[in-house]
Amino acid sequence: MDLFEAIKSRRSIRRYKTDPVDDKKIETILDAGRWAPSWGNTQCWRFVVVRDAAVKAKIADTLKKIKLPDKEVPNPASGAMNNVPVIIVVCARIGSAGAGHGTPGGKPEYVTDKGDWFMFDVALAVQNMVLAAHAQGLGTVIIGAFDAPQVEKILNVPEGYRAVTLFPLGVPEHEGKAPPRKELSEIVSKDSFGK
Amino acid sequence: MDLFEAIKSRRSIRRYKTDPVDDKKIETILDAGRWAPSWGNTQCWRFVVVRDAAVKAKIADTLKKIKLPDKEVPNPASGAMNNVPVIIVVCARIGSAGAGHGTPGGKPEYVTDKGDWFMFDVALAVQNMVLAAHAQGLGTVIIGAFDAPQVEKILNVPEGYRAVTLFPLGVPEHEGKAPPRKELSEIVSKDSFGK
Repeated sequence: MDLFEAIKSRRSIRRYKTDPVDDKKIETILDAGRWAPSWGNTQCWRFVVVRDAAVKAKIADTLKKIKLPDKEVPNPASGAMNNVPVIIVVCARIGSAGAGHGTPGGKPEYVTDKGDWFMFDVALAVQNMVLAAHAQGLGTVIIGAFDAPQVEKILNVPEGYRAVTLFPLGVPEHEGKAPPRKELSEIVSKDSFGK
Repeated sequence: MDLFEAIKSRRSIRRYKTDPVDDKKIETILDAGRWAPSWGNTQCWRFVVVRDAAVKAKIADTLKKIKLPDKEVPNPASGAMNNVPVIIVVCARIGSAGAGHGTPGGKPEYVTDKGDWFMFDVALAVQNMVLAAHAQGLGTVIIGAFDAPQVEKILNVPEGYRAVTLFPLGVPEHEGKAPPRKELSEIVSKDSFGK
């Protein structure tokens, strides 16, 4: 699939068929993640491919309800977790991205005011992955609103690593709608912010 | 360009020709960023396209030296900033990505243990942008090691927004080498971390 077609036609998919997902397609997705750039080539990303039904159910239970001013509503991606054949959980090694080469006292010395860049580097890989899924006819929806410490327990994520995001992976049951995007004139300026 | 070819053949480019960059190509890059997914469609990204020579020089001056245990070395991307026709600075609105809909006391109430997801969402857009540049024959290198508060002053970034990353954009003077990637066996596990 053409790059621009992939970027523009990818949608967040919240209902999936129960059709199985081929291992070869998953490998292509993981490989696309691997080729993302990263801070000093630290490649802090780690991917856990979850197919086990019991593990998937436990992970689905960690999706957080979203608080509205007057009530709580289910995470809109909750429906996506039912019966989806695969969930990919993306973890990060902390203390590497964003750090200089010096680690005095065994602690990473971060170079910028953003501290650890694991969120940034993980997302570079995740964007490659969701595009690679879409180009192979598979749907995804990137989920952040889940109980990450609980997922770390479920997957036995060791100290020094964090669960960052996860996405179901399956054959879309619907086409997906594009939520409206801001116009370029609202988000782009020239030589100075807002100009 | 095919998506997988774009993902695998993109390189971080650290030397550029002085050839001008067409506005139409830049618009295609910005548009690719705009089509990234984001937390609750908050689209926190803001792009500043810098062509003004004086502004570019000031930004180039903010690149941080990298500390090694025994000395400081220039940011390896410093060379890329000389004479490059365009620098794109990516800023983020804070307090939106990662937040629920409730903002008691005017403060965002973040849903996860990661707090504000601006780093993640900005990176989703940036990965689309570097792929879109590459597919149009342009090179980039994503830079994090710069003095972001200083860039915020240079570009008059208002309160509530942060400068996150920047990248030079120009015609590559060299092909770029791929730093070695970890094998999938080193970064992928099944149903449990490390298995």
